[in-house]
Amino acid sequence: MSDTLNGNVPGSATYGVKALFFDVFGTLVDWRTGIAREAEALLKPRGYALDLLAFADAWRAEYDPAMDDVRSGRIPFARLDVLHRRMLDLILPRFGIRDLPEDVAHDLNLAWHRLDGWPDLTPAMTRLGRRFLMAPVSNGNIALLADLARRNSLRFDAILGAEIAGDYKPKPRVYLAAAEAFGLPASACMMVFAASHTSDAVGAAACGMRTASIARLDEFGLGKAASTPAVPVDIIAQDLNDLAAILEV
Amino acid sequence: MSDTLNGNVPGSATYGVKALFFDVFGTLVDWRTGIAREAEALLKPRGYALDLLAFADAWRAEYDPAMDDVRSGRIPFARLDVLHRRMLDLILPRFGIRDLPEDVAHDLNLAWHRLDGWPDLTPAMTRLGRRFLMAPVSNGNIALLADLARRNSLRFDAILGAEIAGDYKPKPRVYLAAAEAFGLPASACMMVFAASHTSDAVGAAACGMRTASIARLDEFGLGKAASTPAVPVDIIAQDLNDLAAILEV
Repeated sequence: MSDTLNGNVPGSATYGVKALFFDVFGTLVDWRTGIAREAEALLKPRGYALDLLAFADAWRAEYDPAMDDVRSGRIPFARLDVLHRRMLDLILPRFGIRDLPEDVAHDLNLAWHRLDGWPDLTPAMTRLGRRFLMAPVSNGNIALLADLARRNSLRFDAILGAEIAGDYKPKPRVYLAAAEAFGLPASACMMVFAASHTSDAVGAAACGMRTASIARLDEFGLGKAASTPAVPVDIIAQDLNDLAAILEV
Repeated sequence: MSDTLNGNVPGSATYGVKALFFDVFGTLVDWRTGIAREAEALLKPRGYALDLLAFADAWRAEYDPAMDDVRSGRIPFARLDVLHRRMLDLILPRFGIRDLPEDVAHDLNLAWHRLDGWPDLTPAMTRLGRRFLMAPVSNGNIALLADLARRNSLRFDAILGAEIAGDYKPKPRVYLAAAEAFGLPASACMMVFAASHTSDAVGAAACGMRTASIARLDEFGLGKAASTPAVPVDIIAQDLNDLAAILEV
């Protein structure tokens, strides 16, 4: 192995890949039960009774429309923390919450900074990091991703993604900016995402990256997600340990 | 301690600081003997005889003029790897080197990715990282800083600095973009730099950051650098372990 980005990583199983880029929400961390837990901790003591998983789903359901507003140029780029807050303010009234104090709403918005990884996350990422350069290429902002990395004991070589590109996935600029930041051609980068995340599979491949999918069956509720992608990818793995084995790390 | 950027770090000795930002060349790593070592390894076997430390000094002496070209807007922003190569091409003929093969020149340019830290670096940074968010705020590009971090076993929360700001220190935008990336006011950030680096001391303080200087007496040759800064700073430390002690980590 080389400790220099512009060095060579041996091993035919790596497809010449030098950097692994990771989608984060759903792929590395379990946003659904994490948001439900954080919402319960902040809202229940204040007397709000609500379906916590439905609340998590409703918040996340506003994600794509918010991204679309930026991707289409209807609104200027704003960090995901800012968009999450706008999304939160949209859904709170639907759950009968109209008088949440500002400090509580602010703290609730940061629930996305306090999500836990799927069980395989930390040991598998440590293993993969011995061979490959590692970075999140997520729509999350730098502060959010740095908090998730610290909470889950991940060592990334850099935080890449939407905030350094000034746009949101699956726009090509986000993938290409990540490869450029590491001084690598896209073909030396592999994007890793949950199997149901078709937009990452298509977006990364269109930029010339290698692609790897992970089965995250429980992202949307127990067993609800696809275990294999709907489009062709280079590697189909069961989880991150399986990916490490396939990449011969 | 908090693992969330927007949480609170206790302890009056921290001045309310939540993030430590580090200058890199001279402050964390010894560029002068590292560049001399790399130049020797690449040039000596090819029959070039030169004063290696003078070569390192000459290369670094082109740094400020190159930065100035970008800071003044005379040339568009380019990553430090690109500027280092232009600087290298300027100085090679001065040392009688006119026929260096392109692959060797390319590899020599990446010598800046292969520098070693001062002796206190790795243990002290690990110690500081238990309490504070940590990031380089350097004029180096992301790939360069990621390589230096990996080589020296540093765990940064993000790679900030010139490349995410699109300009070079000491322009205020570079310091302010770093604080914004962590979602922090400048007053919750402390810039750490070698005592002789007056431009960082002035630039960071002008943006409202806290400032800490480290004695790096040997940056420009044995004992040649100042041990204390020429302008007022918040903390004057002997090295990074001393800084950790002052910050009560």
